[in-house]
Amino acid sequence: MDERPSVEVCFTPNLYPLHFDDADVVVVIDVLRATTAICAGMANGVKTIIPVASIEEALEYRQRGYIVAAERKGKVVEGFDLGNSPYSWINPELIGKTVVLTTTNGTQAIHTSRRANEMVIGSLINLDAVVKYLHKKKLNVMLLGSGWRNKFCLEDTICAGAIADGLLASGDFRSEEDSTIAAKYLYLSAKDNYLGYLKASSHRRRLQDLNLNEDIKYCLTPNQVDVVPICKDGRISI
Amino acid sequence: MDERPSVEVCFTPNLYPLHFDDADVVVVIDVLRATTAICAGMANGVKTIIPVASIEEALEYRQRGYIVAAERKGKVVEGFDLGNSPYSWINPELIGKTVVLTTTNGTQAIHTSRRANEMVIGSLINLDAVVKYLHKKKLNVMLLGSGWRNKFCLEDTICAGAIADGLLASGDFRSEEDSTIAAKYLYLSAKDNYLGYLKASSHRRRLQDLNLNEDIKYCLTPNQVDVVPICKDGRISI
Repeated sequence: MDERPSVEVCFTPNLYPLHFDDADVVVVIDVLRATTAICAGMANGVKTIIPVASIEEALEYRQRGYIVAAERKGKVVEGFDLGNSPYSWINPELIGKTVVLTTTNGTQAIHTSRRANEMVIGSLINLDAVVKYLHKKKLNVMLLGSGWRNKFCLEDTICAGAIADGLLASGDFRSEEDSTIAAKYLYLSAKDNYLGYLKASSHRRRLQDLNLNEDIKYCLTPNQVDVVPICKDGRISI
Repeated sequence: MDERPSVEVCFTPNLYPLHFDDADVVVVIDVLRATTAICAGMANGVKTIIPVASIEEALEYRQRGYIVAAERKGKVVEGFDLGNSPYSWINPELIGKTVVLTTTNGTQAIHTSRRANEMVIGSLINLDAVVKYLHKKKLNVMLLGSGWRNKFCLEDTICAGAIADGLLASGDFRSEEDSTIAAKYLYLSAKDNYLGYLKASSHRRRLQDLNLNEDIKYCLTPNQVDVVPICKDGRISI
């Protein structure tokens, strides 16, 4: 019997019930762009982020005076302060502030895993920090991709594969699922050129159409920040 | 607007409703071992195969005098004639016969896609025959993996990636989904050594424990037969 903690990849929130056997820590990943924006904001002084699943909840917070970020289909929702472009989260005006956030996919994944013992926010920009944090904990890990409306998404899977590879390479973790093997293989073939590898990916095409190439480059550049945002009782902080 | 027919990969039956937009042909894939066994049987003289989802239905057929193959968890179910080992389907006694089949995953995937306009049985052993058939049809194709109890499974995805690659390489098909890109990438890195690539896969490990190494080798050797079994009105034939 292999007693090491496990690390497994779950591609999308709708598959969460199939995988949630014994994960102690869930890492929520939405590379393009929600979890990247959260990490960028947290590393640049945002104090607390309140993720909410619906525009309705976001509106309620807005009416109560909160700064609210709302994105749907890649765009800032009309009437809100910002969206999920990571650059808009690197803003001196947000330092020390609480920001409410709702996005198409990322905050849905956070909502899905809200009953996990611990929830960590992962992205490529805080990759090594997350691996280091999880390695220290030595608990069972589930890496949850946000996907695109519950469909498999390449960049989240590659990020999950990168985290899985980091933990498995240490020899201190085990893995059973084919989803984890596939994510690792995809990461290994992508890692020398994320931009080129993801050229054809559906999400990248979607954002390119919106002229978000700079955002895409930022999101696909690993290890720019050294924070591990944790979501607890509906609040994200570091 | 790209008017070419599409080819997309759906990893598992539970995701079928998310993907089933406009597929004209569904290719059901269960490399280890249901669809491989079907192709082996059909290429070796079995006349008709009746796939059924449950052991109960299989038992009813058994009582009515049919030859019945039933597999659960990699083993022949007690009281039935054979399972899904492809070697057991290459048998002179089955020539010209109708065989009823129920398996853990493969026949569930067939059941899931029973309302598709056309259903094709795909595997690595009839890979080129399937690609050729689909290329001639020039219709929208969905490649449906059987998975393992609705979890992602590496060998089905690699087979789907091989078919997708064959069609996309012709330039006559288009693809939009990240699942298709990932399947293609996985196939491309696996194709020179399927056995090695799948060494760690969960299903291979499961079958290895049952001493089914010869079966695994057979199932992972492409292009051994030149048949394209079609499932129509609940009956598979060529």
